[in-house]
Amino acid sequence: MQRLHEELDKLARFSSSEYPSVTRVLYTQNDLEARQYFISLCEDLNLKVRIDPIGNTYARWEGAEPKLAAIGTGSHIDAIPLSGQYDGTVGVFGALEAIRYLKSINFKPKRSIELVLFTAEEPTRFAIGCLGSRMMSGQLKLEQALKLKDKEGNFLNDVRIEAGFKGDLNEVELSKDYYHAFIELHIEQGPRLEKEGLDIGIVSKIAAPSTLRVNLIGEGGHAGAVLMPIRKDAGIAGAEIMIAVERIAKKSNSDDTVGTTGIFDILPRAVNSIPKEAYLEIDLRDTNIETRDKALSDLKQEIAEICEKRNIKYSIEILNCDPPAICDSQLVNTIEKVTNSLGYSSKIMASHAYHDSLFMAQLFPTTMIFIPSKDGVSHRPDEYSSPEQIEKGVKTLALTLKEIDG
Amino acid sequence: MQRLHEELDKLARFSSSEYPSVTRVLYTQNDLEARQYFISLCEDLNLKVRIDPIGNTYARWEGAEPKLAAIGTGSHIDAIPLSGQYDGTVGVFGALEAIRYLKSINFKPKRSIELVLFTAEEPTRFAIGCLGSRMMSGQLKLEQALKLKDKEGNFLNDVRIEAGFKGDLNEVELSKDYYHAFIELHIEQGPRLEKEGLDIGIVSKIAAPSTLRVNLIGEGGHAGAVLMPIRKDAGIAGAEIMIAVERIAKKSNSDDTVGTTGIFDILPRAVNSIPKEAYLEIDLRDTNIETRDKALSDLKQEIAEICEKRNIKYSIEILNCDPPAICDSQLVNTIEKVTNSLGYSSKIMASHAYHDSLFMAQLFPTTMIFIPSKDGVSHRPDEYSSPEQIEKGVKTLALTLKEIDG
Repeated sequence: MQRLHEELDKLARFSSSEYPSVTRVLYTQNDLEARQYFISLCEDLNLKVRIDPIGNTYARWEGAEPKLAAIGTGSHIDAIPLSGQYDGTVGVFGALEAIRYLKSINFKPKRSIELVLFTAEEPTRFAIGCLGSRMMSGQLKLEQALKLKDKEGNFLNDVRIEAGFKGDLNEVELSKDYYHAFIELHIEQGPRLEKEGLDIGIVSKIAAPSTLRVNLIGEGGHAGAVLMPIRKDAGIAGAEIMIAVERIAKKSNSDDTVGTTGIFDILPRAVNSIPKEAYLEIDLRDTNIETRDKALSDLKQEIAEICEKRNIKYSIEILNCDPPAICDSQLVNTIEKVTNSLGYSSKIMASHAYHDSLFMAQLFPTTMIFIPSKDGVSHRPDEYSSPEQIEKGVKTLALTLKEIDG
Repeated sequence: MQRLHEELDKLARFSSSEYPSVTRVLYTQNDLEARQYFISLCEDLNLKVRIDPIGNTYARWEGAEPKLAAIGTGSHIDAIPLSGQYDGTVGVFGALEAIRYLKSINFKPKRSIELVLFTAEEPTRFAIGCLGSRMMSGQLKLEQALKLKDKEGNFLNDVRIEAGFKGDLNEVELSKDYYHAFIELHIEQGPRLEKEGLDIGIVSKIAAPSTLRVNLIGEGGHAGAVLMPIRKDAGIAGAEIMIAVERIAKKSNSDDTVGTTGIFDILPRAVNSIPKEAYLEIDLRDTNIETRDKALSDLKQEIAEICEKRNIKYSIEILNCDPPAICDSQLVNTIEKVTNSLGYSSKIMASHAYHDSLFMAQLFPTTMIFIPSKDGVSHRPDEYSSPEQIEKGVKTLALTLKEIDG
């Protein structure tokens, strides 16, 4: 599989940050060039490429009975700022390698096998994750999608057309009978497989994410002249909210609850000026929807209390609040059988991270194949899975596709 | 004094943010044009203009005995992002109006009267306040000044030359006998004069500011996949430090202690990524140096404790840590006499804000004249002092200059 590793390394160079860090934001030049590279490899394999109006890219290996629902696999290649080279990409280029492998053993599929490159799994540009799969599954309606703007105020619909993706956005949505099954290969992005020395994780459920935007408005003023008792510092209120996010996630009854404030901006952002405004983006998730929703409502209440105490005006916008996905138990069993036959160790586990499969699972029997992440790290330049680990993931995926077809 | 108000209004248009907010950053086009406007008004008054190598601009009304040490007055015209139109500017254009007034009553000074426009009182561009007056007073040595870089990595020395300020930076420093006395007219930037219904504040001491830069390095990772117990979130450590700054300032024995975190940046700044790094700029000050230094050492200890508890690497850089200034008691008495003669109410008070006078006071007998600030606000677009309040400040300054000369 030397070729796959060379392809992943080449892909990592389509980046607006310095190698080995990767920054590949939706519809930027690097994103478009990386897509073109992917398409050229698909064409080398004689896959039939179709691109939908939002840029989701389908590469089809036609089966002997093309009228049957296809078997889907795939992931994403966009990357948040200063991240690594395996998140998403292993599920796209690894699936290509799985198809190569199946062709090399002369397998002829009955159902078509279709590889999907999803548009913008990461929320970097439009503050909403899984843009492509959300629209494919009908979870993001057209009227909402048309309202999406990036930080510069550009509408999604304008930038996708500028990037060369044309056509009626209504055509992005898939029908429930489009895929017979969907399997995503992905790095774990956590430490559990590595810690237990396992080769493969088989995903039984995917955490339910929710994202909040919080705007705080207090009163600015001169950092020297406005004495402490009369201040309405929006920055400190934001700091208290950050700490509340952590406390709520930690005190939840579930070990799986995670809460993160990944964005916190203050204005006017001058050392001698009291923060007048603050802006936070908060990510809260759990594999259990009740626990997640309890954490969300606790957080909303704490935000209200902090802002009341500090005389800060606030607004909360829920950017998304998706249900968790339960994976298809038959597919989970199939993968377990495949790993046993290959002599790979495996465990059935939850995915804490959020994937396009979350949305595929709304329509199709779905599951995911995880491979270990070194030190459990992801979204960082030192994100790493070894060639051997990736190879085991690719073989598991290949034989699972074959098994499902058979 | 209609003319002064028109000048202040015109000056507010030299801004990179929308009127009535003012943003005028050192050596930007707006700063340079505003300086040119000031110089043209000085020349209209036949003042002799001299510009030093860092851009401090001196406008001299030659006295009958030009060999005597001059009497200095002045302030700054740079403005932090999204601030107001009176901070600093009243002490520059108001001093010009004071000279006009003295000329109108046919006063002929014995000593020269010199109006100074100081370069960069605000720390916006080079993260150090009072750049011009610090260099004039020898408190910022040339070798330190040459190390200063802005956020884009440009050296101070390069940008000042690009902006047209040439010559040997060693020549910026003034000798101790350069001024006989120095008086700065300024808005209070706090609520005390307005609350007590007073016309004029006479400044007896100026708070001792200190500025800290704190860098935090934790561990990033995926916001979904890295569970709470193993995180090293640099953002949350930063939030705890912000709250510590507030707590320390509030619990100090002095009502005058203020602590502000005006800058807080986190990296990589993505909603689904754990903050790996955080950067804070903190302002801590008091009129009493012991109380300020105690707060500073408490804060350093709290930062160490927070970072140890959270496994965060950190560094603290003290950007400045200036001694407070005690103003000249004779000058304070002179101003009190002047306000009495004009029938203005006044009080002797401390300045919590930080001014070029802090550095002038290292060399010369110095004090400041304060006028009320509406609702005590400053560094905001709604910063306001009425034409009547400004007029009283200008008259007090004019007659004080006359009194000192006589």
